[in-house]
Amino acid sequence: MPAIEIVPSEVTFDDIHKASERIRPIAKRTPVMHSRGFDAEAKVAAFFKCENFQTGGAFKIRGASNFVYSIPEADLPRGVVAFSSGNHAQAVAIAARSLGIPATLVMPTDAPRSKLEATRAQGAKIVEYDRFRDDRAAIGARIAAETGATLVPPFDHPWIIAGQGTAALELLEEVPDLDALVAPIGGGGLMSGCSIAAKHLRPRIRVIGVEPEKGNDAFLSLAAGKRVEVPPPDTIADGLRTPVPGAITFPILQRNVERVVLVSDDEIRAAVKFLLTRLKILVEPSGAVGAAAALFGKLPAELGRVGIVLSGGNVDFDLLAGF
Amino acid sequence: MPAIEIVPSEVTFDDIHKASERIRPIAKRTPVMHSRGFDAEAKVAAFFKCENFQTGGAFKIRGASNFVYSIPEADLPRGVVAFSSGNHAQAVAIAARSLGIPATLVMPTDAPRSKLEATRAQGAKIVEYDRFRDDRAAIGARIAAETGATLVPPFDHPWIIAGQGTAALELLEEVPDLDALVAPIGGGGLMSGCSIAAKHLRPRIRVIGVEPEKGNDAFLSLAAGKRVEVPPPDTIADGLRTPVPGAITFPILQRNVERVVLVSDDEIRAAVKFLLTRLKILVEPSGAVGAAAALFGKLPAELGRVGIVLSGGNVDFDLLAGF
Repeated sequence: MPAIEIVPSEVTFDDIHKASERIRPIAKRTPVMHSRGFDAEAKVAAFFKCENFQTGGAFKIRGASNFVYSIPEADLPRGVVAFSSGNHAQAVAIAARSLGIPATLVMPTDAPRSKLEATRAQGAKIVEYDRFRDDRAAIGARIAAETGATLVPPFDHPWIIAGQGTAALELLEEVPDLDALVAPIGGGGLMSGCSIAAKHLRPRIRVIGVEPEKGNDAFLSLAAGKRVEVPPPDTIADGLRTPVPGAITFPILQRNVERVVLVSDDEIRAAVKFLLTRLKILVEPSGAVGAAAALFGKLPAELGRVGIVLSGGNVDFDLLAGF
Repeated sequence: MPAIEIVPSEVTFDDIHKASERIRPIAKRTPVMHSRGFDAEAKVAAFFKCENFQTGGAFKIRGASNFVYSIPEADLPRGVVAFSSGNHAQAVAIAARSLGIPATLVMPTDAPRSKLEATRAQGAKIVEYDRFRDDRAAIGARIAAETGATLVPPFDHPWIIAGQGTAALELLEEVPDLDALVAPIGGGGLMSGCSIAAKHLRPRIRVIGVEPEKGNDAFLSLAAGKRVEVPPPDTIADGLRTPVPGAITFPILQRNVERVVLVSDDEIRAAVKFLLTRLKILVEPSGAVGAAAALFGKLPAELGRVGIVLSGGNVDFDLLAGF
């Protein structure tokens, strides 16, 4: 994969802007929703970037398609491989299918069935692994070596980061006068890309990350000033179970993120229910952490207008029914 | 209530157009959604008018606010009274509150708690009644007589019908080339108003009503050529439990509705789940009957592009979890 190695690790606003053009054929410009009921409850004016309505049901198609569409043409026929808890896998499968190239996805056996099935429905090959025992990165690398497929990393790559940043680009184009941007942090791809776009468009914007209490690797890492790895996180937010921030994303988080706030699984469930019954939209647990932070008073009190990325909507009905 | 008696029972497109101006301060222009996944499953191109995102969570604010804003000014201070399974009650409460006038709502004891609570939260007075024993119309009329409040009928009034018709007006403005319009029939207010708007804007459009199997009063009435009353319908679609079409709505349905198709409660539940997990939107059982008809092959096979009114999104989480 020579193309990957020569990419500079720096990501600029220009990269994000170019990504927004590149991914236009496949990624939707998702709506921004506003709810007086939510604002009254959270005591803040919240503007939701609804990536639950995105192609594949999550923001991941932004980075995945920006990456896949950037692969040198000579490498494309050997296809792509990726490892993911679900949304990235589905996004890579969709992007690969749009180019007619093969895709192999390494997914945990306990990924939501809806995510496994949706990925399979895209015509991708699924390789399951045990999240508590196997090394998914090693499995992905082995498949890449054996098949010559290009590995599409889930977050720690400039092409991925630039793609994810287009969510904040669109949000700030639509609602320019935000005091803060709030987004979940898993591996940091979404937050690093979005923070670059937001800080460029509105230099004084405050950038606040959100993690589940049991998946607080970015929180600990920013406090320690270095990347800290936690045990495999046991949280309902299945998209935020990454145990350590990325080598490329972490310095960007250090530069741009003012603070990381933590929400409990109960708070996440309550936020999912609030968004469902009051705003009438389905947001998955990982996608609802920003709304949970707002609803449960975890954001700085002095904020007026806050942009919150609802990063995805893929949740099994049976899981939801148990909330 | 002299103002009500002198209103002609005919409803014209002009009435609907004027209603759309009148209700603009309070009723949202709701989005129209389209889903390739739904289309593939239903084998039709469906365009959803998302009244689940409407003020109060249902289309009812259109008719209720058109009515309340048409009450002669001298009558306003004595307030309004209405009877409803929930969505109309909430809509009347919201419209009354916007004018600062009192509202009394007569609601069944088994109405969804979310609807009762949302109505109460608007500052309205709630009077509960037993749906299988009491005569809600009589209770409403008695309160109107005692207090001088204006009775806001749930469906059978030209002002209500004209207001509800604005949903189809907006839908056809956004997607003009529809082969058919599909909407639920409860008392017939939504369908009669929407059919007038649709037939005016697109004379050859086919208008198809949907009812739950167990609340098939419009189906039976159209077949009989006269209004037929059924026993209180026992269906999950709580907004479609009206036992008989209205005296004013029925002739309009006779003129404009090509056929009424029936869906089972199981089909309704499946449609709610499909809209939830695939489109990421919450639609209440009554609101999902049109989608159920499309998903379960109840619509004429030769239709290409179909506008479907998703009429509301107010459903208790506990009920939903049991689906």
